[in-house]
Amino acid sequence: MTGPTDDERVARAALSRLSEPGDLRVQRVVRELGATRVHDHLRDERDLDGVLTDIAQRLRGHDPVRELDEAARAGIRFVVPGDDEWPTQLDDLDRCEPVERQGGAPLGLWVRGPLRLAEACARSAAVVGSRSATTYGGDIAGSLGHDLAAAGFTVVSGAAFGIDGAAHRGALAGDGPTVAVLACGVDRAYPAGHAALLGHIAATGLVVSELPPGCAPTRLRFLTRNRVIAALTGGTVVVEAALRSGALNTANWAGRLGRVLMGVPGPVTSAPSQGVHEMLRTREAQLVTEAAHVVELLGALGDDLAPVARGPETARDRLPATQRRVLEATPVVRGAPATAIARTAGLSVGATRQALEALLATGAVERRGDQWRLARAHRATGAGPDRGEDPDEDPGDAAAAMPGEAAVPS
Amino acid sequence: MTGPTDDERVARAALSRLSEPGDLRVQRVVRELGATRVHDHLRDERDLDGVLTDIAQRLRGHDPVRELDEAARAGIRFVVPGDDEWPTQLDDLDRCEPVERQGGAPLGLWVRGPLRLAEACARSAAVVGSRSATTYGGDIAGSLGHDLAAAGFTVVSGAAFGIDGAAHRGALAGDGPTVAVLACGVDRAYPAGHAALLGHIAATGLVVSELPPGCAPTRLRFLTRNRVIAALTGGTVVVEAALRSGALNTANWAGRLGRVLMGVPGPVTSAPSQGVHEMLRTREAQLVTEAAHVVELLGALGDDLAPVARGPETARDRLPATQRRVLEATPVVRGAPATAIARTAGLSVGATRQALEALLATGAVERRGDQWRLARAHRATGAGPDRGEDPDEDPGDAAAAMPGEAAVPS
Repeated sequence: MTGPTDDERVARAALSRLSEPGDLRVQRVVRELGATRVHDHLRDERDLDGVLTDIAQRLRGHDPVRELDEAARAGIRFVVPGDDEWPTQLDDLDRCEPVERQGGAPLGLWVRGPLRLAEACARSAAVVGSRSATTYGGDIAGSLGHDLAAAGFTVVSGAAFGIDGAAHRGALAGDGPTVAVLACGVDRAYPAGHAALLGHIAATGLVVSELPPGCAPTRLRFLTRNRVIAALTGGTVVVEAALRSGALNTANWAGRLGRVLMGVPGPVTSAPSQGVHEMLRTREAQLVTEAAHVVELLGALGDDLAPVARGPETARDRLPATQRRVLEATPVVRGAPATAIARTAGLSVGATRQALEALLATGAVERRGDQWRLARAHRATGAGPDRGEDPDEDPGDAAAAMPGEAAVPS
Repeated sequence: MTGPTDDERVARAALSRLSEPGDLRVQRVVRELGATRVHDHLRDERDLDGVLTDIAQRLRGHDPVRELDEAARAGIRFVVPGDDEWPTQLDDLDRCEPVERQGGAPLGLWVRGPLRLAEACARSAAVVGSRSATTYGGDIAGSLGHDLAAAGFTVVSGAAFGIDGAAHRGALAGDGPTVAVLACGVDRAYPAGHAALLGHIAATGLVVSELPPGCAPTRLRFLTRNRVIAALTGGTVVVEAALRSGALNTANWAGRLGRVLMGVPGPVTSAPSQGVHEMLRTREAQLVTEAAHVVELLGALGDDLAPVARGPETARDRLPATQRRVLEATPVVRGAPATAIARTAGLSVGATRQALEALLATGAVERRGDQWRLARAHRATGAGPDRGEDPDEDPGDAAAAMPGEAAVPS
């Protein structure tokens, strides 16, 4: 495939400057006529179905060729469909229902940074969330960013305060590529407090925007920006989001685009987790607690399986059932005769004696005359040989099953 | 239906004393021959397929009639299948695969307290979790217990330290019925630190056990007890559970019994929430964050719907789209002409003027000469008239869209 013509790029640059991102009227005529013809029409101030007169009016005196040159001198390129670097997954936006009459694939993306955009986003995850994040949320976003980067995923976010910034920083700390998608020109630092962060991202990753250099962020631009974050990535992880958080807008786009939508839970008492919990509760989103879960959901099928979470296996798990039962019925300090242990264990005296001998051989119990009790080495942490490993197990409570209190009253 | 005979009750009491809860050998012969005939056989020390000799041996000298009398004098009754008070949902256990050769419905339940068991559990939820709970988990369990009780649900749990105790206490605080299912005799206080709590529960709710009075708890008895908690209730809520917590055993039983299994999330950094998160991640359990969600899942279909969680609607939400766009492009402090606002908003000057006049009429913007800015009353919290209501929204950032920086360079 030959790339886009210069005319095409110039036309798209002009339209990108003069229309709002996600303007469906522009999308429609560009799809029907092609960007170059739309641009020609508008430059001649010819009416296009009566819908684009406001753009035509503003076209006067605008020089897109000069603008592209100036951008290039500032290290900014304008990537359009057909470019090698164009992430074709953005075209999914053209097949996705618009929201409040906004949507569709971008006319192009203004890009600053050393990576190739399509390549950088081929294996990528969005990590987004609340600007008013808690330290908990910030920590989680940071370690997700770090661990995703370490797993070879590009972390895409919106460079906002809170979760976004933490995710980018985590990725940078993990020496991984990270992509910031802005709601203003890529030459602007918004928020201003993230000027240094954006500088770092542009130096090693990419800063990207649908809006030409110099453009200011507005609320609608944040919303249309969010669809780009969702569409660029294989899935979106929401770390903290209150019930009306902008991050939920990104989440909705991810869901509507058929991307994997993930949420990290938090305390149910924490307002910034409420929006995430609601997505998880309604099963719009899949719960993840660590990068490995994200990698599993976004990675190639069969590869990238997260390690199974399980508690440590204990020595007790490996005992035959009868020995386990007898061990649990054996007192800790004062000894008890086999007959009493048998009653507590609910086993015959014969089976109990056999099990006690086996446990004696492995050093789990000790015998003094006809009295049995747990071996000294196994006593320190409570009633069982492995009690110390698992503070949350129910007590086998041999201590409570002292002979005097055995199951059958004597 | 006539109730069970005295012989049946006596036979089941004897078998309950002499076999371990959930012993499948006993279940099987009782199902085949009836409890009375099994008891007769064993009393004669006749061999029942060679499997019950250990029980037969222990039957000597045991007087179940005297035991039932003594229990009754201590305020303890033995409820068996066929009694009005028998919760027939326990019979589901007979249709459920055993785990490690244990399972099946109890032979009967020893019960202490003023409620009728079946009635108390008709509309009930189990709230279970870690003994080594965090204060977060305890708070959540307590308020779940309280709110479920207030919604007319009986809170069933295991009276353990941590989550169980907090759930019972919450229900008591909500003046609601609560049922403690023990792994020892209902005349025993286990754990001893919960003696007063168990006294309260027995005074207003129910203390229940498969094990006869006097019996000590053992680890296996905790595990078989858990199946009773799961089977008695419409669903089980796990509040905190580490990866090897006994609460997950109750959860597994709930799942296998087709009961609703629910989990309350917590910080992903908290070990006592790990087991819950794993259940939620694998979709074994449904995420809940408050009692209303539990009520919705367990209540009658269509009734008991939880209120929809949503952020407050703001004045801005109710504006027509064009006015909203113009409002967002209007500067906060320094005024700007309609032409500059039009460029930032991406609208024609005519449409922008029209919107500004409408916003002026509602008091959202003010005008000085040809300069427009946000009205003073709407400025205090930032750039928009309702910004203060939603700290987590993206900034509409009219401030950043000052005329000098408008979208089209002049």
